[in-house]
Amino acid sequence: MDPLLPGSTLGILGGGQLGRYMAISAQQRGYRVAVLDPQPDAPAHQVAHQKIVAAYNNPAALEQLAGLCQAVTFEFENVPAASLEPFARHGVSIRPGPLALATCQDRIAEKTLINDCGIETAPWRPVRTKNDLAPALVALGGSGILKTARSGYDGKGQAKIQTPAQAVEAFSRFGSVDCVLEGIVPFSLECSVLAARDVHGTCVTYPVCENAHSHHILDVTICPARIPEQTAKAMRAHTVRIAERLEYLGHLAVEFFVLANGSVVVNEIAPRPHNSGHLTLDAAQTNQFEQHVRCVLGWPVVPYEQIHAASAMANLLGDGWNRREPRWAALADFPHVRLHLYGKAQARPGRKMGHLTAWSESVESAEAMVRKARQALFNPAD
Amino acid sequence: MDPLLPGSTLGILGGGQLGRYMAISAQQRGYRVAVLDPQPDAPAHQVAHQKIVAAYNNPAALEQLAGLCQAVTFEFENVPAASLEPFARHGVSIRPGPLALATCQDRIAEKTLINDCGIETAPWRPVRTKNDLAPALVALGGSGILKTARSGYDGKGQAKIQTPAQAVEAFSRFGSVDCVLEGIVPFSLECSVLAARDVHGTCVTYPVCENAHSHHILDVTICPARIPEQTAKAMRAHTVRIAERLEYLGHLAVEFFVLANGSVVVNEIAPRPHNSGHLTLDAAQTNQFEQHVRCVLGWPVVPYEQIHAASAMANLLGDGWNRREPRWAALADFPHVRLHLYGKAQARPGRKMGHLTAWSESVESAEAMVRKARQALFNPAD
Repeated sequence: MDPLLPGSTLGILGGGQLGRYMAISAQQRGYRVAVLDPQPDAPAHQVAHQKIVAAYNNPAALEQLAGLCQAVTFEFENVPAASLEPFARHGVSIRPGPLALATCQDRIAEKTLINDCGIETAPWRPVRTKNDLAPALVALGGSGILKTARSGYDGKGQAKIQTPAQAVEAFSRFGSVDCVLEGIVPFSLECSVLAARDVHGTCVTYPVCENAHSHHILDVTICPARIPEQTAKAMRAHTVRIAERLEYLGHLAVEFFVLANGSVVVNEIAPRPHNSGHLTLDAAQTNQFEQHVRCVLGWPVVPYEQIHAASAMANLLGDGWNRREPRWAALADFPHVRLHLYGKAQARPGRKMGHLTAWSESVESAEAMVRKARQALFNPAD
Repeated sequence: MDPLLPGSTLGILGGGQLGRYMAISAQQRGYRVAVLDPQPDAPAHQVAHQKIVAAYNNPAALEQLAGLCQAVTFEFENVPAASLEPFARHGVSIRPGPLALATCQDRIAEKTLINDCGIETAPWRPVRTKNDLAPALVALGGSGILKTARSGYDGKGQAKIQTPAQAVEAFSRFGSVDCVLEGIVPFSLECSVLAARDVHGTCVTYPVCENAHSHHILDVTICPARIPEQTAKAMRAHTVRIAERLEYLGHLAVEFFVLANGSVVVNEIAPRPHNSGHLTLDAAQTNQFEQHVRCVLGWPVVPYEQIHAASAMANLLGDGWNRREPRWAALADFPHVRLHLYGKAQARPGRKMGHLTAWSESVESAEAMVRKARQALFNPAD
């Protein structure tokens, strides 16, 4: 199983920041890159060899991309099965494969697979019709979070449920589509494990990341997570087991909750590079996008080496950006903080514009640095 | 002095591998990139936001680029002064500046400036007419290397001279253009110092690199060079002095010869990222292209931190490539070696197609790894 010849073309569905970093990684290994995204100035279009500006489900555009590339990968998991058909027909390597995509785009299939691996999730019930709501709510102790089975991200398509009436209202507001009702688990920490699995079945994992969210969007990640060695080991082993069960090819992230008693449950699987993995851009010998692209193009994974004892990442969202340009010059005071921006022209509230990374001897000091640097960008007076 | 606003455009004259890495670095900080290069599929064109396919001295193309960008930089030093005029007229920041470019594209001006800094070069004489040849040859002890003052690189425009007749023949073959005759110094080692100097006048240097050439083209670099601490310190100090004298803005490399007695002389200045600096892509926290782009865009330099005790780089030239595709799969046996390819479609003898880097605890083992990996690519039977 040789890698695809350099000079071959990698197709990427999705032209946001994840696609952009994938494109850059592939180019640095001598590959060409073609991106499909409906936005003409999408971050990945700006750096790709060839851009196809069209909707993700546009048959002619998919056909064009399939004819151009030898391997195809995805920035997001919500790829309709029909969109894969032209690639299969052209003999293009689809990575991660159809099984991983189909599983991870459906919370019911995903949770079933995780549980089948013998790994815990929060307690959950499938909700396919209005009639499933009441028994599910009873089974979970009277409260929970209703989530659409498909197409949710960053807290979208979710509702907290405390009464049967709320459940009915939310289910109907979501369009009566397939949902899951999840029990609320009293977690003490949110973590993620970054992993990459190659064509030879070798799977490497990175030290566990600890994540803090704000308004359902990742805010700050630190690494390594402040958890017992034993807990970290379990999460990394769970992640490898899930990757194997998915016959996974590429980089993935598994999100975990650490409960008060020290046990862990899986929250969800992201079958792609992940926001919490952005710190690997400055803190790992080989970053998550390189690992992903290596696997997709048929190269073996390489050791996931940390080059610093600790690191941290803080997202830069578009909130407030339009009122005043961030004070870039303030970063001069932070020689161990790096700015990453995605080339998005328009800042909107909640839009991920870039991130900061920092490295240090301890996670506390790395976290303090990214937070201080971010504050200096946006609130210099504080 | 604030940095240029992210979202601004960096113009790059020259679309080879150096321009390509500059483009990628600028894009990762949220800048747009426009490249001017006559080859439609030049390595940097493949990754740029905007490409201008035209000769470097095409007035309309230069005018177009100047209208697009807020700062401009160069992949090579042989930029005619007239090509800078449109950028000056549009108020574009030209970095490195006209003084550095004018000096480094003329061996007579360059050696004069170095000597004016109190730093030694090999003994040399300017040769502007045929009549200068005989006295220059006598002054240098009867032998030397005749080099055209302008436009030489990788051993082109150079001739070894041992008799007056050879001198006359070579001078005439070079078109009777301005030349220098350099005395031959019996050096024991070739080294280079990578440095970056920012708008605040801060100049950082990287540990000294040791370079081995083959047929006048860089073959292998190892870092740090196996020289006394004192010698390394002198070279780094010389480099800073030269950067200051040039009012330099950006990344530069100064090539040195280490003589048998331990003293050092400057061979030449490369006013740009340099082939010997490619190992910073995997062995430094911040690589030479990032440092260059930071300086060009008005950001402060950051510490030039090594992340490994030792590293090595081996060039991959196009020789033999067309007879057989390199055995890429062989690299699977080298987890601490990284492949870099520049996206050049056509392999030609002597053409720089890519390079390998390796890192380790000692330069000896890093060098052994890149050499072994390269051999595995091209001569698997040996």
